[in-house]
Amino acid sequence: MQFLSDNAARVHPKVWAAMQAADSPDRPYDGDALSQRLDAAFSELFGRDVAALWASSGTAANSLALTTVVEPHGGVICHREAHIEMDECGAPGFYTHGAKLLLAEGDGARLTPAAIETVLAGITRGVHQVAAHAISLTQASEYGLCYRPEELQAIGALAKARGLGLHVDGARFANAVAFLGCSPADAAGPADALSFGCTKNGGMDADAIVLFDREAAELVRWRRKRGGHLQSKGRVLAAQILALLEGGLWLENARAANDAAAEIAGSAKDRLLHPVEANELFVKLAAAERTALRAQGFQFYDWDETTVRMVAAWDTPPDHATALVRALAAL
Amino acid sequence: MQFLSDNAARVHPKVWAAMQAADSPDRPYDGDALSQRLDAAFSELFGRDVAALWASSGTAANSLALTTVVEPHGGVICHREAHIEMDECGAPGFYTHGAKLLLAEGDGARLTPAAIETVLAGITRGVHQVAAHAISLTQASEYGLCYRPEELQAIGALAKARGLGLHVDGARFANAVAFLGCSPADAAGPADALSFGCTKNGGMDADAIVLFDREAAELVRWRRKRGGHLQSKGRVLAAQILALLEGGLWLENARAANDAAAEIAGSAKDRLLHPVEANELFVKLAAAERTALRAQGFQFYDWDETTVRMVAAWDTPPDHATALVRALAAL
Amino acid sequence: MQFLSDNAARVHPKVWAAMQAADSPDRPYDGDALSQRLDAAFSELFGRDVAALWASSGTAANSLALTTVVEPHGGVICHREAHIEMDECGAPGFYTHGAKLLLAEGDGARLTPAAIETVLAGITRGVHQVAAHAISLTQASEYGLCYRPEELQAIGALAKARGLGLHVDGARFANAVAFLGCSPADAAGPADALSFGCTKNGGMDADAIVLFDREAAELVRWRRKRGGHLQSKGRVLAAQILALLEGGLWLENARAANDAAAEIAGSAKDRLLHPVEANELFVKLAAAERTALRAQGFQFYDWDETTVRMVAAWDTPPDHATALVRALAAL
Amino acid sequence: MQFLSDNAARVHPKVWAAMQAADSPDRPYDGDALSQRLDAAFSELFGRDVAALWASSGTAANSLALTTVVEPHGGVICHREAHIEMDECGAPGFYTHGAKLLLAEGDGARLTPAAIETVLAGITRGVHQVAAHAISLTQASEYGLCYRPEELQAIGALAKARGLGLHVDGARFANAVAFLGCSPADAAGPADALSFGCTKNGGMDADAIVLFDREAAELVRWRRKRGGHLQSKGRVLAAQILALLEGGLWLENARAANDAAAEIAGSAKDRLLHPVEANELFVKLAAAERTALRAQGFQFYDWDETTVRMVAAWDTPPDHATALVRALAAL
Repeated sequence: MQFLSDNAARVHPKVWAAMQAADSPDRPYDGDALSQRLDAAFSELFGRDVAALWASSGTAANSLALTTVVEPHGGVICHREAHIEMDECGAPGFYTHGAKLLLAEGDGARLTPAAIETVLAGITRGVHQVAAHAISLTQASEYGLCYRPEELQAIGALAKARGLGLHVDGARFANAVAFLGCSPADAAGPADALSFGCTKNGGMDADAIVLFDREAAELVRWRRKRGGHLQSKGRVLAAQILALLEGGLWLENARAANDAAAEIAGSAKDRLLHPVEANELFVKLAAAERTALRAQGFQFYDWDETTVRMVAAWDTPPDHATALVRALAAL
Repeated sequence: MQFLSDNAARVHPKVWAAMQAADSPDRPYDGDALSQRLDAAFSELFGRDVAALWASSGTAANSLALTTVVEPHGGVICHREAHIEMDECGAPGFYTHGAKLLLAEGDGARLTPAAIETVLAGITRGVHQVAAHAISLTQASEYGLCYRPEELQAIGALAKARGLGLHVDGARFANAVAFLGCSPADAAGPADALSFGCTKNGGMDADAIVLFDREAAELVRWRRKRGGHLQSKGRVLAAQILALLEGGLWLENARAANDAAAEIAGSAKDRLLHPVEANELFVKLAAAERTALRAQGFQFYDWDETTVRMVAAWDTPPDHATALVRALAAL
Repeated sequence: MQFLSDNAARVHPKVWAAMQAADSPDRPYDGDALSQRLDAAFSELFGRDVAALWASSGTAANSLALTTVVEPHGGVICHREAHIEMDECGAPGFYTHGAKLLLAEGDGARLTPAAIETVLAGITRGVHQVAAHAISLTQASEYGLCYRPEELQAIGALAKARGLGLHVDGARFANAVAFLGCSPADAAGPADALSFGCTKNGGMDADAIVLFDREAAELVRWRRKRGGHLQSKGRVLAAQILALLEGGLWLENARAANDAAAEIAGSAKDRLLHPVEANELFVKLAAAERTALRAQGFQFYDWDETTVRMVAAWDTPPDHATALVRALAAL
Repeated sequence: MQFLSDNAARVHPKVWAAMQAADSPDRPYDGDALSQRLDAAFSELFGRDVAALWASSGTAANSLALTTVVEPHGGVICHREAHIEMDECGAPGFYTHGAKLLLAEGDGARLTPAAIETVLAGITRGVHQVAAHAISLTQASEYGLCYRPEELQAIGALAKARGLGLHVDGARFANAVAFLGCSPADAAGPADALSFGCTKNGGMDADAIVLFDREAAELVRWRRKRGGHLQSKGRVLAAQILALLEGGLWLENARAANDAAAEIAGSAKDRLLHPVEANELFVKLAAAERTALRAQGFQFYDWDETTVRMVAAWDTPPDHATALVRALAAL
């Protein structure tokens, strides 16, 4: 019973079907009919004209998106536990040619205007110190917490006032929208660039880079190829994304994952490090308790000495969730 | 009738089947059972201990492989029409942090020891000039020509004598082996690193990086993640590669493509820019002739003002090949 | 009366004389007789065979030195207030092609084994997280505090045990040696690479990169040229360094600066943020007090809201120091 | 008798005097009064508002200037024998984060609109191929040949029509102006950025980056610091440049060098590879002839098997030039 990560979940049958339907010769790279539909599909989703490109990993999507908001000599303010800081092996620095991540504090890996201001206040040395060019936040955060639309507006207002770009790491954007119950546009706030995760949500190997400044897409097109991410059969990546968007499958999958997480959370209320808003649970478990759960067949990730991470996915079997509920209650 | 490129051909049914068979939760990234089998599979193929990693594009495979043979301040000798020079948007320079491509001449985009020596002879200025650290050649070449085993040995001997690494771009390595009729080991020669193409040969989005120096794999593992190429569901990439290796499907597919190309070549002998050894044809066609062929439904790529490129793939329908034979003969 | 920074102090007359003596045509770059003497001069100073190269700024010296201990995908543990983190505009990341600075805590901007271990303990995610390749410390620290030889040995032992390189930023290395009263070798500890500051200590625009692993010099030679730091009249840079080494002028200058700082510290004991060991003072001063001192002609740097930084240099006029002593006492 | 290179010539006495006059404490980096005068001094020289910054080497000046005209994924068209291609160890690629040099042909290392068009005509593959963002030419060229004002206008018109930036490597810009007898503005043509050489022309270690788009200076300021080129005692670099500009010393020095070269050329007319316009001579000499000259005490550089390079400097002693004239005549 796998609660290690949604990134290892299965591919949704409709995604498989769409990929196979796309498997006939077409123009290579992103010249095919499906890739060409991404702009329109995301423009509809966000209710405004955007550009959208596929990328084959969330790290690639984030890194390429960041190139549109920071120059090599600048910095990006992010939470000290942000995925781009902790889990991408320096990929953001690689793609931005050395831009620095400027680390902010904040509960549950969420940024606040105050935390951002603290970072900015420490930048006083002119050309001797890396200056902030942008802010990056994760929706939902690395602890599964969601920014409310008004919080995003407040951060966006600060970004605008300070001349900073705004990037949103949306590896679990769908789970955030599902929790917030708002429009995708409200859940993205005044972002300049968003990585829209699909792989964790029923896709195989396709995430989308959504650029609210359409002109920035030109830069990303060059940098994507230069990063080795312009796959020749791009149509199968586009097919995955479109299959998830169609009929709201992306939201349906996210809701299933969130619901499973919520169910499990119900039996571990006293053990939760953070409220469960999306599909991740951070549960305080002693070593013996971990051993006991693992002996019952549950797989999860040791977050640190006191806490484990459990992640529900779109395809978490109901009986697995229920079994975990019982096992946690029985500890 | 599509002769634009093998990179837009269909995915082989056995590859589809293998991908779907791999679609059950397993360890993410390359921790799954299939990814872990790659070293053994390629070691068997090459008859010696090698390390092998998947990458989702040929450009990524080449660029990551190059990081093992050149430092940022060094250079890589390649043909002036090499794919890494002409078609990868500077990706090799990006991944190697600025290493320079040092351009050599040679018929049919093939390097010779003499051409390499000419480049080396021009490097005389010590620390003021970029020094060569490696040689990169393409098997089969960008004009579909194959290096014979003894030619590879001669280039390898030169590399060794000069302290240079040797990279082989094997985007169409299968087609070369099919033509040469030799072992994969002989077709790779004394390479240090080989990108082993699968995407053009029945795969979907997986190529392999084969490292004959197993220790170099450690570097590539870090750089692959840093390049955003460590996909979370790596098992589906490994599945593609293993499906092609199994039972020699990779060679079978390459032979089919080569055979179709040879058939077409037979009716265009006087028009060929180069002998057809692999699955690419470079055919001299006047503008009116191109128009005539296109009017009959044939798609191909204008190489330059005098020549077009036609590429056969593993799935080129026999009746398409036959139709093209007739159409060329009728010009 | 200038206490802003030693980096704006005058050039020592003997340095001027040496530069002018060097001003006759010789081989360009570092092929001249003086540049060729650096290895021997520093080998004598450190009592072992080392390689030494000039660089025209401390930032360049640090950054080039760091390239010898960290790969692009790795990280360097340093204090969060280290000069390489705070004051070099990302130059270390630029020269190392994106290596990350991993920030440690510590009083007075000094690292301890425990602080380093804390950073290392947080690196648990394998290829997903930037791994530490090296440690960098500053001797004397950014707050003018010196590492004792046994402290350096302890950090060096940790570095060795963990397979990490050790870089020492010695922008004020001379001041540290003057304070410690030990040999240069003991003040450098088991460093792999040291930037040996001269510009702040009577030089004009020359610092030295000292490489205790002589083979690393080859890498630095290429990277120095590639960074635009191989000046054609390198003999005047070598002349500066040799003039300072000769007859112990470097130590004499550092002692003069330290003595002036110590004299000033004597009248500000209750206001000092840290003990004064080298030539920097961090003095708690209220806004009105700052204004009063500035009205008397003293120039210094506002460190933060409670503290100012005052720096004595080799050429601080005794009457300026005495005047500052009196002015501080009179506050 | 040294004809190896002007880059190893002596520092002019007026430059020494200016440096020493600048040696009193002032604001560090480029905050001093002299550095602040550069914009005005070069604006006067070029008859329009420009920004100007010092750099301590020609390679740094070129590389930093190039960052203003090319993005990391772009290319710069230059001659295949351009200094930035042949003699800077990849520094342009380092500073531009991997931008590619796109090599053009041309007699005497001079570009022509036709040669540039040929390069552009080969760029046809969209995002797969590095696109040209800029042109870089050298005034005077690497063979000492000067672009006439109307030639620069023609290249500038092409650049403008194609949306390309224009960089001028002016390591020997003074020699070009001295030869052309035109204004500096006419000798720079419609450049966006110019590196204005001083080190070869009586300076010690200071060249200027002249930015005709003043806003580009902001970028260069960050990148200069990030490259370790923001020296703390910048006033001595500014002093060198201002001393050369004052009273036209830069032109006077260049004329002296050109005159010496012209005198020598007079006795080697039949041996010249190119007309001598600036201060460099490329003289066809057999091995025995080289040996004979060297036996007489002449130092020069072997360019290739048939040709040597001799360079006159501002301080070439008249009797050395005369001796060389006689020795060449006597061969």
